[in-house]
Amino acid sequence: MPFQMFKLPNGLQLIGETIPTSRSCSVGFFVRTGSRDENAGESGVSHFLEHMMFKGTPRRSALDVNRDFDRIGASYNAYTSEEHTVYYAAVLPEYLPQAIDILADILRPSLRVDDFDTEKKVILEEIKMYEDVPGSMAWENARSIYYGKHPLGNSILGTSASVAALSRDQMQAYFDRRYVSSNIIVAVAGQFEWESFVDLMGTATATWPDVYAPREGISEAHGPGGLHSVAKEGTAQQHVLVFNTCPPAESMLRYVNSVLAIALGDDSGSRLHWSLVDPGKVESASCGSDTGQGSGALVTTFSCDPAEAVANLAIVQEVLADIQKNGLSEQEIAQAKNKIASRVVRASERPMGRMRTIAGSWLYNNEYSDPDVELARFDAVNSRSIRELLDLYPLTTNTVVGYGPLADLK
Amino acid sequence: MPFQMFKLPNGLQLIGETIPTSRSCSVGFFVRTGSRDENAGESGVSHFLEHMMFKGTPRRSALDVNRDFDRIGASYNAYTSEEHTVYYAAVLPEYLPQAIDILADILRPSLRVDDFDTEKKVILEEIKMYEDVPGSMAWENARSIYYGKHPLGNSILGTSASVAALSRDQMQAYFDRRYVSSNIIVAVAGQFEWESFVDLMGTATATWPDVYAPREGISEAHGPGGLHSVAKEGTAQQHVLVFNTCPPAESMLRYVNSVLAIALGDDSGSRLHWSLVDPGKVESASCGSDTGQGSGALVTTFSCDPAEAVANLAIVQEVLADIQKNGLSEQEIAQAKNKIASRVVRASERPMGRMRTIAGSWLYNNEYSDPDVELARFDAVNSRSIRELLDLYPLTTNTVVGYGPLADLK
Repeated sequence: MPFQMFKLPNGLQLIGETIPTSRSCSVGFFVRTGSRDENAGESGVSHFLEHMMFKGTPRRSALDVNRDFDRIGASYNAYTSEEHTVYYAAVLPEYLPQAIDILADILRPSLRVDDFDTEKKVILEEIKMYEDVPGSMAWENARSIYYGKHPLGNSILGTSASVAALSRDQMQAYFDRRYVSSNIIVAVAGQFEWESFVDLMGTATATWPDVYAPREGISEAHGPGGLHSVAKEGTAQQHVLVFNTCPPAESMLRYVNSVLAIALGDDSGSRLHWSLVDPGKVESASCGSDTGQGSGALVTTFSCDPAEAVANLAIVQEVLADIQKNGLSEQEIAQAKNKIASRVVRASERPMGRMRTIAGSWLYNNEYSDPDVELARFDAVNSRSIRELLDLYPLTTNTVVGYGPLADLK
Repeated sequence: MPFQMFKLPNGLQLIGETIPTSRSCSVGFFVRTGSRDENAGESGVSHFLEHMMFKGTPRRSALDVNRDFDRIGASYNAYTSEEHTVYYAAVLPEYLPQAIDILADILRPSLRVDDFDTEKKVILEEIKMYEDVPGSMAWENARSIYYGKHPLGNSILGTSASVAALSRDQMQAYFDRRYVSSNIIVAVAGQFEWESFVDLMGTATATWPDVYAPREGISEAHGPGGLHSVAKEGTAQQHVLVFNTCPPAESMLRYVNSVLAIALGDDSGSRLHWSLVDPGKVESASCGSDTGQGSGALVTTFSCDPAEAVANLAIVQEVLADIQKNGLSEQEIAQAKNKIASRVVRASERPMGRMRTIAGSWLYNNEYSDPDVELARFDAVNSRSIRELLDLYPLTTNTVVGYGPLADLK
């Protein structure tokens, strides 16, 4: 049995998949916290805190953190999303003990005021650079309009104002509230010994507090509907985003939804490809799922010459209406399933990919993500399940947001 | 024995590595041709031809090529370098026959005049976009100065003028000269059956001509030495590139050279990191090997505020002189070897990675790249082999090229 799981006495959940032929292993600390878990006045703290984790602990300076990772040849990084903050490293099997020691150590950071003040400047720079990218700001503004007061609408980076106003003590309070063992999953995949992994983790996290701190505010977002525009001078392209409610991340309908999203907006051979990209009507067009716990959105997006935006939006609405009415063809479904099967299989080829997949499945469903089961669930999608999905989550009542030179999309 | 090889009667070389636990397979056609093989008046033809390969054959329109790849869920692409042009696809094992059929077919392109004229515009756009990126133009100009008339100095994209002047018949002549079976290696890795692969390849390429067309102009480039500058108005950063001759791609000294390059300029924990990046003297600094058949260059590069460029160049020269005199410390060598071992192992985890690795090794050395042998060769590097490398390829006689606001680097 390649999959194992164990809950430590402090509430920390360990999961692992042994890959006997692998020559490396990947380990990740998945913290069930992100921008959706931030209170008013804390906007941006999850991401800022992620940076601070590399700035040192009582045992290690920031320099030591880098040097210790470097010595073992680790490939390491971290990222923050709306729902998770993840710290991970890929190493040769003989260095797994050191990797665990460093990761567990940095997850109890000193949060020194000097480092906090210095890093705040780095974050403010990052926000400014992000604000210079029209595509990113289109996404940020559109999510804000679609989600409204729903916590999934919280910005990951925060704003210059919200980050400037953050204090070190607020960050500590957020850390104490969210970085509790019961909110953390540690996933390992590749070449390793499960028993010694459990021992190492128990030792490394023995002093971690066991507090129950579940996520609040789980509900389905629906968006206000209608046409919205954020006029932005100085941008050349018009960005248009069309939001539809879709199944949330933990839903069994996610497999059907993935097939629909590929057939609708994959970068080759999809409805959007043939109706907008291939005839050269847009610079880009795609479709993706923005799914979280309890709420999902299918987002169809394109960017183009502002003069063509209204006509292109009409084409997108026609495509959506046609699918809503007639579903997908058997050939479209078969092609999408082939693409997904190929991607699922290829993503499962590396310990890093397996680490992410088993952690994602555990975070949302407390379920082992067996590749054969996943493939079978995708393979079971047919025109009937597509029809059921469309009836439950129709594509014709959507929220449209424009970002760019146009004052409106009429 | 997981590795197999076979030469078809037409001269085409087949190599393959079976990975029994893999669930996908990757196949690539590696053509031993690139910008270094272009004659005067052909600059840019290798890369332009790579694009034309997807524009159709007697059996398939451009649309068919895309649709046929899409139907089998293939992840496919192509790229052109100074020495190779590569076409590849990753698919589920059951679709390998179709992938081979499509790839072998597109490698005998129609090169229709209409498509040629349309695609030329795409290439000219690509050149313009490339020319807008200062870092790319710094690299292009520096290689041109370092290599001079050596064929490795040929530009991959070509210039707007050289591409505009290309005719369809010139491309056909280049194709006929270079795309001969004896210049092509087909590599496959992952889940597949060797015997049926050989059969499929034999059928798919039965009509390919068997012409002997070896590469010409193989010699070691040394660069003119001294300080050179390309003044470019309107750029904010000064780019500086320092070229040293290093072992060519096929040399057994490449392992020692990789350790040196990592210790000198890896993005964390290297000499350049501590002397330039960590103290905030530069925006970026790195070191890499630009190695080809018969000739290699170790390129140390940084970009920074123009006012600091001369001082930073002095620091780089000090670092190079110090390594030349004192070598690397045991700790630096050990850390670089750990990083390399980790990267070698992780790159070998996917069929796509193995396909590239076994093809690269075969292209340069007609040798199977066994991961254990590779790791052992890296592990054998020590301070003595570093010393030998430095004696053969000293770091202190180099060619420096500046690109940016400064008229010179004095």
